[in-house]
Amino acid sequence: MLKNVRIVLVGPIYGGNVGSACRAMANMGLSDLALVAPEPLDMEEARRMACAAQDVLNGRREFATLQEAVADCGVVAGTTARTGLYRAHAQSPHALAPHLLGAAQKGPVAVVFGRETWGLTNEELAICTHLIQIPSSPDYPSLNLAAAVLLCSYELFVASGVYEPPEELSPEACSAMRERMFAMWERLLLDIGFMEQEKALHMMLGIRRIFSRGARTEDDVNILMGIARQMDWKAAQGAGRVR
Amino acid sequence: MLKNVRIVLVGPIYGGNVGSACRAMANMGLSDLALVAPEPLDMEEARRMACAAQDVLNGRREFATLQEAVADCGVVAGTTARTGLYRAHAQSPHALAPHLLGAAQKGPVAVVFGRETWGLTNEELAICTHLIQIPSSPDYPSLNLAAAVLLCSYELFVASGVYEPPEELSPEACSAMRERMFAMWERLLLDIGFMEQEKALHMMLGIRRIFSRGARTEDDVNILMGIARQMDWKAAQGAGRVR
Repeated sequence: MLKNVRIVLVGPIYGGNVGSACRAMANMGLSDLALVAPEPLDMEEARRMACAAQDVLNGRREFATLQEAVADCGVVAGTTARTGLYRAHAQSPHALAPHLLGAAQKGPVAVVFGRETWGLTNEELAICTHLIQIPSSPDYPSLNLAAAVLLCSYELFVASGVYEPPEELSPEACSAMRERMFAMWERLLLDIGFMEQEKALHMMLGIRRIFSRGARTEDDVNILMGIARQMDWKAAQGAGRVR
Repeated sequence: MLKNVRIVLVGPIYGGNVGSACRAMANMGLSDLALVAPEPLDMEEARRMACAAQDVLNGRREFATLQEAVADCGVVAGTTARTGLYRAHAQSPHALAPHLLGAAQKGPVAVVFGRETWGLTNEELAICTHLIQIPSSPDYPSLNLAAAVLLCSYELFVASGVYEPPEELSPEACSAMRERMFAMWERLLLDIGFMEQEKALHMMLGIRRIFSRGARTEDDVNILMGIARQMDWKAAQGAGRVR
């Protein structure tokens, strides 16, 4: 699906922004870049900011008009910072991402970004089927071009489900294992005189809250049991007890 | 809540990235920027990229160490691109945002970003209570520094509009208080022979992970310090030491 998402930059001025946009696209699994009537770009700066995304930069296509750049696209989503009569139905990139990806299953779709200076014209917005407005502070709503590309690409990437959240290596500890740990700690805390029997239930609620929030995996629980065991042994030495 | 979110850049190299990060912050309603031991920065480039976010750039504070930069912070979330033993429990910025905002209602919280070259060290990650991993393509996961700042700031800004806070009665423990607790536990665990000096750093990363996830409030940290103190006293009795 992400292969069918085209990022279209209309009239970009700064090579650095185009390069940064390439890196942002590659970071989020996109590769299809179209430039519409770009100004003369500082390509050295573009290459520098593209970093390891030179393929995206080199693979860019240039078009004279927006119409040509999106001629084969189903959904065409234009980004806008301003609001107004024809911009009031704009959606957030998060809200629009599933729709864009759905359309991208059948053919190319486009996300269109305007000039660094004044965005997209009303004529260009008229070509778009949807409008995207990126959430931003009312005090300073104007995003850098590459920043806008990054946020839209990010929402598409996350919605595509390609991303797999990091896995805990150790399995989640089960309740029975946690209860063995709490039993060990309760006995230990009584033995070392940290709490008295009549306060134990109350105090153990605090301990349980801390340890339950913190120790989620078997590795975690094993560490806490190891500490209790070693402390118990040490405390027994001091008391002359034999364990 | 967003006023209490501090963006911490550790050892940044490029002024342009710092400036772009300032603009990203201002776009998303953030303003508190801390730099830790920055390299000599091209400030002209920083000002150019900060655009209308000169206030954020000018208001930055510099610290010699990460510990100082986050001393007053409750939640300290470190960003990491790599995965590994102590990085496996990282969360996405989207998933962690509500928790960060909840803590930000009571006091400062930090989101920490590493060097452009190799990110945060294990020692720096140890100071963090949470880890953030930003979703990105496995083919090119390495984000530009300002891009990483933008995505985390964006998720916080979006979450701030829909966020409903849960209530903890005890105030969030700050980083400096947590570090005192960890110092007590490290000494204790060495004293009772739970770990040896050469394994201490490694083992303390595990302990830090468990306790940081679990002990969020001052009450929690006081309980864990109380246990360490009592255990230490008990161990000293056994060893015939006087404390």
